[in-house]
Amino acid sequence: MTVGRGRFITVEGIEGAGKSSNLEFIKQLLEAAGKEVLFTREPGGTPLGEEVRNLLLGHRHTGMADDTELLLMFAARAENLEQKIRPALDAGIWVLCDRFTDASYAYQGGGRGIDMRRIQMLEEWTQGDLRPDLTVLLDLPVEVGLERAGKRSEPDRFEKEEIRFFESVRQAYLQIAWDQAERVKLVDASSPLYEVQARIREVFDDYIQSAS
Amino acid sequence: MTVGRGRFITVEGIEGAGKSSNLEFIKQLLEAAGKEVLFTREPGGTPLGEEVRNLLLGHRHTGMADDTELLLMFAARAENLEQKIRPALDAGIWVLCDRFTDASYAYQGGGRGIDMRRIQMLEEWTQGDLRPDLTVLLDLPVEVGLERAGKRSEPDRFEKEEIRFFESVRQAYLQIAWDQAERVKLVDASSPLYEVQARIREVFDDYIQSAS
Repeated sequence: MTVGRGRFITVEGIEGAGKSSNLEFIKQLLEAAGKEVLFTREPGGTPLGEEVRNLLLGHRHTGMADDTELLLMFAARAENLEQKIRPALDAGIWVLCDRFTDASYAYQGGGRGIDMRRIQMLEEWTQGDLRPDLTVLLDLPVEVGLERAGKRSEPDRFEKEEIRFFESVRQAYLQIAWDQAERVKLVDASSPLYEVQARIREVFDDYIQSAS
Repeated sequence: MTVGRGRFITVEGIEGAGKSSNLEFIKQLLEAAGKEVLFTREPGGTPLGEEVRNLLLGHRHTGMADDTELLLMFAARAENLEQKIRPALDAGIWVLCDRFTDASYAYQGGGRGIDMRRIQMLEEWTQGDLRPDLTVLLDLPVEVGLERAGKRSEPDRFEKEEIRFFESVRQAYLQIAWDQAERVKLVDASSPLYEVQARIREVFDDYIQSAS
């Protein structure tokens, strides 16, 4: 890692894991440690990426081929990398990204069943050797997450399918955390917020110390 | 090739090569030979593909990363393959497509300078082993093409750059025709229309005979 280069931090988790509030908390932690922080999100983050995001959301119910969805995700990612992430890192800025390629492995791989090796091919194609330096995985049981996200507690047939889908997503995320424990810090997001934030603070205290 | 499977025909060429009128002519030739024909185009061809097409055209002047453009092209292609091209071929229908992956090699490879091997990786990722059975390359000098497409004959600085860009595109197309002469039939599109169509008729008379 070049001296003076920023660090690339990503936050991952299923619906209801509390990404938004914890992203804000992490941003404050980094800024309190004197880091300049650029916030971005996936898919999206650039004008073109936001259009791709709308396109993905707009076709959520009409459906699209799984390969199409994955290629669109990586198109938005390529744009975000070129326009925002790489220039910021090169300028010594720390980048904080709401979801990144781990989400492709979890949602399109675990959820939709696309072969993980095919996702890896696109990851290498699009990113070269760029990977997040640190990833926070906010983990909690699917039912708890969906309930927090405001879903009904008595699921209908469609919601039961949704639960199975998110269960596969969660398992894929946990597998990544298991395989890449050095990079991915698992945080139990079902705890009370003050405990979650204490754990996050611990992760970043360690990381900022080791990175300086 | 499975008996009963349709054939996949693509037509390629730079601006002003006369793709539209010759596509119509080819469609009539095939239908006269008793083939059921599905017409499609790239990027586009499906509702999602048309949205991607608009997105690409909308950002033509504001710019996007070359990798982004290429991934969007392949996203539209994946959708077209899944929704239209593969089902039609499987049903014995002949598919006639206005541009396909050769255009990615020519425009994004030749024109924008993306490494051809990187394009090949996405081709294999998206298509597996599906390739066009027959491709008609309508070739003509860039200046003739641009003039036919209604561009000014006295180019300004931007148009001179455009000419250089299309020159690279044309050269990449010609290289493909040279490398894959069995599949790609070169047609001199600078000739009068009746000569162009006589040559196309010849190509298809041969092809339909050999394919039946």
